[in-house]
Amino acid sequence: MQIRRATDADWPYLWTIIEPIMREGETFALPRDGDQEVARAYFASPEKVNFIAEDQGEILGASYIRANQQGGGSHIANCGYMTAPAARGRGIAKALCAHSIDYCRADGFQGIQFNFVVSTNEPAVHLWQSFGFEILARLPKAFDHPRLGLVDALLMFKPL
Amino acid sequence: MQIRRATDADWPYLWTIIEPIMREGETFALPRDGDQEVARAYFASPEKVNFIAEDQGEILGASYIRANQQGGGSHIANCGYMTAPAARGRGIAKALCAHSIDYCRADGFQGIQFNFVVSTNEPAVHLWQSFGFEILARLPKAFDHPRLGLVDALLMFKPL
Repeated sequence: MQIRRATDADWPYLWTIIEPIMREGETFALPRDGDQEVARAYFASPEKVNFIAEDQGEILGASYIRANQQGGGSHIANCGYMTAPAARGRGIAKALCAHSIDYCRADGFQGIQFNFVVSTNEPAVHLWQSFGFEILARLPKAFDHPRLGLVDALLMFKPL
Repeated sequence: MQIRRATDADWPYLWTIIEPIMREGETFALPRDGDQEVARAYFASPEKVNFIAEDQGEILGASYIRANQQGGGSHIANCGYMTAPAARGRGIAKALCAHSIDYCRADGFQGIQFNFVVSTNEPAVHLWQSFGFEILARLPKAFDHPRLGLVDALLMFKPL
């Protein structure tokens, strides 16, 4: 598996990863009936850098990295990760997170903030914790889960 | 003083309020050298509703209200307030905040989250607390203050 910078030409493949996650609606705050425009504005808007994890030409997952705020807040990054449904359980999110930590550190960011980790996505929460992310806030009933109803979301942070 | 919905025609006046606050760089995470396009994307982008506080045709302050997240997170609002420098100390932010709480409640939002309150902006922190906002997280050294250096930012939340 390699992780490389995504280009505009990768968007159709990114969309094949994002669409099922958006339709599922359990881990990202995206409209379940959203279209490509919505997905692209969220994951691949111009202020974000995108990376792709691929193996022998097969795209397994993707990440975005951006400054979480502008101006006086631009030294803290924000990242997001999506794994292709068919590639779950192969450590894709782990590899993408490790890559983004290295990237953000090299780029001079002083920390990474995850703004909205759905609390019921426990494998993700544990994975981020294993990388040194701490839960700074529990946002009460901030996410309307399609199966579980209103659940908390977590704000997680790792200093670099 | 009245609070009314802003229109496109109000933008030049909104800019006269936002520009000095952006140049000052002490309370909002906006680039100090940003232009109108940056300011408008932050404060008056299409997914936001803007209101203006005015008195006899003089614009004293402005607010934005939006859903803080999309999809499963769209029941929590996010708001921002700016007071014209010449109108400070006249309770403009207080009036705008009270208005937005009423607006959000009537619009069906179940809470309001402030993502990034600069901790050294103590009058604002106390004002939001007086409205029932609680500090859910202190984001360590998340804001580079032009006079004070790296200071914390606060995530504040009020259920509706």
